[in-house]
Amino acid sequence: MACPRVLGSKSESGALACAKATPVPGDFLHNRASFNPQRTPMSELLNKLEWRYACKKMDPAKAVPQDKVDRIIEAARLAPTSSGLQPFEIIVVTNSAVREQLKTAARGQAQITDGSHLLVFAAWDNYTADRINMMFDLTNAQRGGTNEGWENYRQMLLKNYPARTPEVNFEHAARQAYIGLGASLIAAAFEEVDATPMEGFDPKAVDEILGLSARGLRSVVIVPLGYRAAEGDWLANLKKVRRPTAQFVTEVK
Amino acid sequence: MACPRVLGSKSESGALACAKATPVPGDFLHNRASFNPQRTPMSELLNKLEWRYACKKMDPAKAVPQDKVDRIIEAARLAPTSSGLQPFEIIVVTNSAVREQLKTAARGQAQITDGSHLLVFAAWDNYTADRINMMFDLTNAQRGGTNEGWENYRQMLLKNYPARTPEVNFEHAARQAYIGLGASLIAAAFEEVDATPMEGFDPKAVDEILGLSARGLRSVVIVPLGYRAAEGDWLANLKKVRRPTAQFVTEVK
Repeated sequence: MACPRVLGSKSESGALACAKATPVPGDFLHNRASFNPQRTPMSELLNKLEWRYACKKMDPAKAVPQDKVDRIIEAARLAPTSSGLQPFEIIVVTNSAVREQLKTAARGQAQITDGSHLLVFAAWDNYTADRINMMFDLTNAQRGGTNEGWENYRQMLLKNYPARTPEVNFEHAARQAYIGLGASLIAAAFEEVDATPMEGFDPKAVDEILGLSARGLRSVVIVPLGYRAAEGDWLANLKKVRRPTAQFVTEVK
Repeated sequence: MACPRVLGSKSESGALACAKATPVPGDFLHNRASFNPQRTPMSELLNKLEWRYACKKMDPAKAVPQDKVDRIIEAARLAPTSSGLQPFEIIVVTNSAVREQLKTAARGQAQITDGSHLLVFAAWDNYTADRINMMFDLTNAQRGGTNEGWENYRQMLLKNYPARTPEVNFEHAARQAYIGLGASLIAAAFEEVDATPMEGFDPKAVDEILGLSARGLRSVVIVPLGYRAAEGDWLANLKKVRRPTAQFVTEVK
């Protein structure tokens, strides 16, 4: 192909040369020449990511020990978020009757009741001055003081965030919740616990069942935790498929 | 306090009793009675999450080895996404001139040029039939076949996703990118590489510099990779602050 394999030079239009290049089918290395799988032996983390999958059939007889659940949640709590605001919470549902209601609101997906715990990630419905001040005050209390730069940063957020629409703020908060989601899914893999992230549910119904609106929260993703069933999981033995690195990564050298 | 510490019973309104309870200052266990830190020894993953922070001053003399960068990216590639669509890409910028331009579009944040690599997470600007079919076709090719349920699922996505507004689809894709972001930040910690996620940039300017619009991508978050400087990082020695578990988790038993 005429186009260099690594992007680098600028075209006259200001866009990087080759940025619009059409991938050649089968030529997965069109823009990632320096990637070398031999150079990247799997780390323990990558092994865990390879191990996990979205379990489709959980064994209702097997419960996840509470200490494992605690560590899975702790990973989300420790996960980074924008400005450290942690604009989400996690509801852990073990109550069977409530999980039955939630399953109805989630297209009847059986893992919700076949697993032992259901994590509901719920994002803040808005950024308010109270919420921003709560996190800055907590930070100052824990660090035993503050400084001018930090307080200026607080004022910048107080000026900008509450002035945005609730929907813009909610979408921003939801993205942060997904960082926590990613951390929890990885933590589950480290605990050898199966976890199935689900977006296929009616968020308004879930919010109503769990009383989230009154708390200024909106459900964004739910995750049953459990153990894969010995039989009946159509996905369990299928290859994990991801786009090749060359279709996922572009280098600008 | 009169309210039970663990939520469980339903009120007449259908919302869970106590859901609107106002946290009592200092009473962090108002809704998380069963959490017991003694039961949750730190796992290696949690240690890595504790170790990491948003490095504020990187040492421009230290470059991250390419094999570490590769594993950090691989974690994002292997991360789960909704329906396995992987609706984002990563641009890895090492070119100094391009990073200078990006720094200008990102409030002059010095880590962008003091680090050795800049990861730009760019989400799909929309879900199109072509993109959905690309991932389903790739999956079928890699798995050597398909089945009726899987093809029905493809048709469901083809019917529903392209019919939504591009903005709804972009926001959905952006959330998935944040799962990958979380995986990459954790991977960086496993590699003992400092990583500073940044949203404080002008996405339109970044998209223009990198030619992303022409590729149907929109930048959502950028992450310089590098090593903390010996001096000058105001955050390096400050305590990591997170809300106590009882203010982050609610149990419904």
